[in-house]
Amino acid sequence: MTGTATNASPLLIQEVATRDGFQIEPVFVATRDKIALIDALSAAGFSRIEVSSFVSPKAVPALRDAAEVFAGLHRRPGTVYVALVPNPKGAERALAARVDEVNLVASVSETHNRANMGMSPAASIEGFSRIMETVRGSGVSTNATVATAFGCPFEGEQAADKVMRQVERYLALGIEGVTLADTTGMANPRQVEHLVARALTIVPAEHLTLHFHNTRGLGLANVLAAYGAGARRFDAALGGLGGCPFAPGATGNICTEDLVSMAYEMGIETGLDLDALIGLSRDLPRLIGHDVPGQVAKAGRPSDLHPVPAAA
Amino acid sequence: MTGTATNASPLLIQEVATRDGFQIEPVFVATRDKIALIDALSAAGFSRIEVSSFVSPKAVPALRDAAEVFAGLHRRPGTVYVALVPNPKGAERALAARVDEVNLVASVSETHNRANMGMSPAASIEGFSRIMETVRGSGVSTNATVATAFGCPFEGEQAADKVMRQVERYLALGIEGVTLADTTGMANPRQVEHLVARALTIVPAEHLTLHFHNTRGLGLANVLAAYGAGARRFDAALGGLGGCPFAPGATGNICTEDLVSMAYEMGIETGLDLDALIGLSRDLPRLIGHDVPGQVAKAGRPSDLHPVPAAA
Repeated sequence: MTGTATNASPLLIQEVATRDGFQIEPVFVATRDKIALIDALSAAGFSRIEVSSFVSPKAVPALRDAAEVFAGLHRRPGTVYVALVPNPKGAERALAARVDEVNLVASVSETHNRANMGMSPAASIEGFSRIMETVRGSGVSTNATVATAFGCPFEGEQAADKVMRQVERYLALGIEGVTLADTTGMANPRQVEHLVARALTIVPAEHLTLHFHNTRGLGLANVLAAYGAGARRFDAALGGLGGCPFAPGATGNICTEDLVSMAYEMGIETGLDLDALIGLSRDLPRLIGHDVPGQVAKAGRPSDLHPVPAAA
Repeated sequence: MTGTATNASPLLIQEVATRDGFQIEPVFVATRDKIALIDALSAAGFSRIEVSSFVSPKAVPALRDAAEVFAGLHRRPGTVYVALVPNPKGAERALAARVDEVNLVASVSETHNRANMGMSPAASIEGFSRIMETVRGSGVSTNATVATAFGCPFEGEQAADKVMRQVERYLALGIEGVTLADTTGMANPRQVEHLVARALTIVPAEHLTLHFHNTRGLGLANVLAAYGAGARRFDAALGGLGGCPFAPGATGNICTEDLVSMAYEMGIETGLDLDALIGLSRDLPRLIGHDVPGQVAKAGRPSDLHPVPAAA
């Protein structure tokens, strides 16, 4: 019953460990190690990798080498290399680095966007229109993220209507892809099901991404709820990297290899080499100096059998 | 949308931390601390608590005080105090300790039952019929667990037909409750949905319990799948206690307070005081000497808001 092919729709994973994971690590991962990891991830089958972020090196020193990382990558045909860009200047740097796609971000919560971006969400979205002018004609595709779409750590729950208005603004600017992000892991499966169903009335499934954090242990339950409601694209981070500054000790993004293992066992195609991912996850502590939250890399796949104890 | 009452069916949780959690701890938790915890758990609203196990003190020294724990409890009306019993001798000790219910256990996997119980599953189930003779007329209710129902760490996947035949044998013996246990965390949501749907054709929902481990991060996703298929009773351990000897570093049982938080956010009643549970979970490291895997006790509830950073 497990691991067999079914007619279930494939699930597409965008790997975000080198962006959403590394950005909060106190250690600077060497540029050559970042490049080697990204090349290994593309070899493992990812069609989308969020490589880095063209933010201020002062704000996020861990990602100050974004341009060098893009310059050093071995670009695998069929892999889209994405960069997060916070503003028009970042977009110019990203285009100069020959990114395939830029990912813009604004929070639906006013206070979160001011804390994170230093401006109102409306001002952020005005910046998006300038970024779209920069990008137009370059052949670079665009995605925009609604941060705190499932709740804000300062304001609490965000009204679904407000989230949907922000999605509509993104689409009106000509942005192709939309990500709904549970930035600090506040989402629950019922809420996810409702918001995904609403979003799919205006964003096609192939352009809608769900970004969940496992802060309260619900990451994969939320994926299951979103998939059940028709979502097909998910962000995930190798090893479950990517903590939350408001939840010390809590886990980060949903874990790529745990999600791929779940999909495999359920007969849902991801196109990814799970054994390769487990190997890469087990190597992460060497890069960042600490254990990571992912479970399958510790426990092994369900099909990894153990010898019967001698006493039996 | 979150946390509001709906007409969703309530979800009943049996707390198993003091049995399935403590049994693998190398530290002996003092009898008075066990009793205080169980009394605090019953005060938090549990209608069912698996208190301890009447196994050989040599096999499981951590639970050698099962009789003293039962003797010291303050029995809350409405709470059923359960003990695991492995054999007829254990059942006699359990009855002498005035348990409300005995939980019997046999693996569906031959090799796992031999490793765990030193006999074939058939021999274990023969022992059940002798236990039923001991229990008959005592007023003590009975439950029996199908261990490794979702896979065996030595043999791999177990055929659903074989699991169902074992459930039928339990029912034929007059056992009232049946637990399907994912003993080492191998289950996936699709498999859970199928097996729960089959089990519910012969076991009423109020007598069927699902016991999941979070070994590979799918614990709450499996709960969601089981609930969707009609299951209403779940085992869970405070703090996510209860490791797996084959997965060092992996988490244990599904975490009670994480499950209660998910249910609360989804508008599903559990009858439990979540804030009290979080407080008790945060006290576990004092009892067992190490951190526990539960996430909500670290991250706080989604509704626990944070002050806006001063820079905003």
